[in-house]
Amino acid sequence: MMTQRWVWRVSLLALISLVAVAGCSDSGEAVDGDPLPSWNAGAAKTTIIEFVSAVTDEDGADYVRPADRIAVFDNDGTLWVEYPLYPQVSFTFDRIKTLAPRHPEWTTTQPFKAILEDDMQTVVASGEEGVFEMAIATHTGMTAEEFEETVSQWLATSEHPTLKRPYTECVYQPQLELLAYLHTNGFTTFIVSGGSGQFIRPWSEEIYGIPPHRVVGSSFASEFQIIEGKPVLVRLPRIASLNEKADKPVSIYNHIGSRPILAFGNSDGDMQMLQYTTAGDGRRLGLLLHHDDDDREFAYDRDSQVGQLDEALDEAARQDWTVVSMKNDFATVFPPKSR
Amino acid sequence: MMTQRWVWRVSLLALISLVAVAGCSDSGEAVDGDPLPSWNAGAAKTTIIEFVSAVTDEDGADYVRPADRIAVFDNDGTLWVEYPLYPQVSFTFDRIKTLAPRHPEWTTTQPFKAILEDDMQTVVASGEEGVFEMAIATHTGMTAEEFEETVSQWLATSEHPTLKRPYTECVYQPQLELLAYLHTNGFTTFIVSGGSGQFIRPWSEEIYGIPPHRVVGSSFASEFQIIEGKPVLVRLPRIASLNEKADKPVSIYNHIGSRPILAFGNSDGDMQMLQYTTAGDGRRLGLLLHHDDDDREFAYDRDSQVGQLDEALDEAARQDWTVVSMKNDFATVFPPKSR
Repeated sequence: MMTQRWVWRVSLLALISLVAVAGCSDSGEAVDGDPLPSWNAGAAKTTIIEFVSAVTDEDGADYVRPADRIAVFDNDGTLWVEYPLYPQVSFTFDRIKTLAPRHPEWTTTQPFKAILEDDMQTVVASGEEGVFEMAIATHTGMTAEEFEETVSQWLATSEHPTLKRPYTECVYQPQLELLAYLHTNGFTTFIVSGGSGQFIRPWSEEIYGIPPHRVVGSSFASEFQIIEGKPVLVRLPRIASLNEKADKPVSIYNHIGSRPILAFGNSDGDMQMLQYTTAGDGRRLGLLLHHDDDDREFAYDRDSQVGQLDEALDEAARQDWTVVSMKNDFATVFPPKSR
Repeated sequence: MMTQRWVWRVSLLALISLVAVAGCSDSGEAVDGDPLPSWNAGAAKTTIIEFVSAVTDEDGADYVRPADRIAVFDNDGTLWVEYPLYPQVSFTFDRIKTLAPRHPEWTTTQPFKAILEDDMQTVVASGEEGVFEMAIATHTGMTAEEFEETVSQWLATSEHPTLKRPYTECVYQPQLELLAYLHTNGFTTFIVSGGSGQFIRPWSEEIYGIPPHRVVGSSFASEFQIIEGKPVLVRLPRIASLNEKADKPVSIYNHIGSRPILAFGNSDGDMQMLQYTTAGDGRRLGLLLHHDDDDREFAYDRDSQVGQLDEALDEAARQDWTVVSMKNDFATVFPPKSR
């Protein structure tokens, strides 16, 4: 069911394959005015710089006026780490533990009982229905402001299980530089995520320089209510929109209203977004981040349960999209740790 | 039915009450650095300027950082003329006439036959079901780009029936100045319209300085398809979202992600948007435009079929929202005519 293959694209198998590999490098530094110091010299970096130069050259054949310089980025696995668990899934599990004292029934109800006992095999066995139940229990039934506060608090206190750094520091330094480079060159950037937009918005401006209204994601329904005289939005236990695969171009149309000229993804869930973007008239750029760096981050693609990159990799070759190798193209993977 | 009270909020009675009143004044000009020269001195203008001064004063108690300076505007009747027919409804009727040669069956099928014969009484008699059929026939079944082109062409060649000016010049000069004033003061503005967002986006940047991604409206569903090898979005004959009354705060949450600090509307359809906005912490401003100027524009409120302003007017008194009188507060109503 649509509603159950939800948002998280939770990889049930990946839940039990926590890979104990991590690594991080020093942050890149601008060298001689290089706008992308954390990118190694190579075809990917050259392609990006040539593209930006071409569409901003007012005298060139490929010039694009600033209003049409729309760039869209997937989030999980493209801007920050998604392996071995989407951070939103980790949030969900942590919230169940936090909320457990208020839900004594969870000690005897699956999949909640299994979460409380760290019994991942049983969590996996609960299937998509279990995942959906856990999402409802942790993402709905509160006001918009309450949910935002909960996300912010979790991010301030949690960390990635193997990288041992806050999730907001599990973002990719080369991508932060790319976003800044695009902003400097008059682009308007958007996040188009399969995850919940409301999970990203509390921190997207500070971390990425992308304000909340430029974050497009899946969403639960919500309802305007007046509670004790105060108008609020209450999050309801019902999916309002999904944002994966062919949903992404539709969301781009509904939310952004223009066909982007640059799209950056990392998985099969991003294929249609790249197809839609690169099929527009004039010069376009499609990019896929390939996780092939088992030393500094993770290596996974065609057979992965999280962030599977299979048909989109084949399509990249047919479409002349640029495949960015984390191992070869990223001089640095992560920004400096703050704690 | 939700799907049939749609978007246009088509006023069936108003269809047969085309009021033959028009009027336009010279465009306002900046006087001594006044940011709102087309606003008469008075409580409304003072309230706006004091609000903007307060939230931008870094040393003041009401300071709001730029990222949170979110302002939302209704479109029909707030930024441009909605009377006696929402322009989108005029567009629909015109499109039916234009498309008629390709639809010989329309000469014998209501409500299309009535449109072709300018028989508004029969159009009205077709009720909401008829309205919905006409919307489907004119707004769906084409690609995103084709619809945008159609809207742009119509706007370039049509005019308001009594004001005798292009619809994009039936915008209110004082509101253009207000938008510019807010932009200068670090606000991010959004249109939150009950009409179709895709009907506004083709011209919102040029006319209002509001890019397409900051236009939120009702929408038809669309689907990603690859047609003759080319990825496109096809508009489907099904409502995806409505954006009236209590839908507006929900859309603001989904699309913008922050509670606005300023909301400007003109009808009961905007009441919840103003309630949600002004209930936030800190200084907030709610504004309602009252159409009370039968000489220069139109006069209508509690009993109108178009843009009814009844319960929101009562709520304005309770909530201390600012009611802007077109007659008294607008020194000038429209910008200069270009043709």
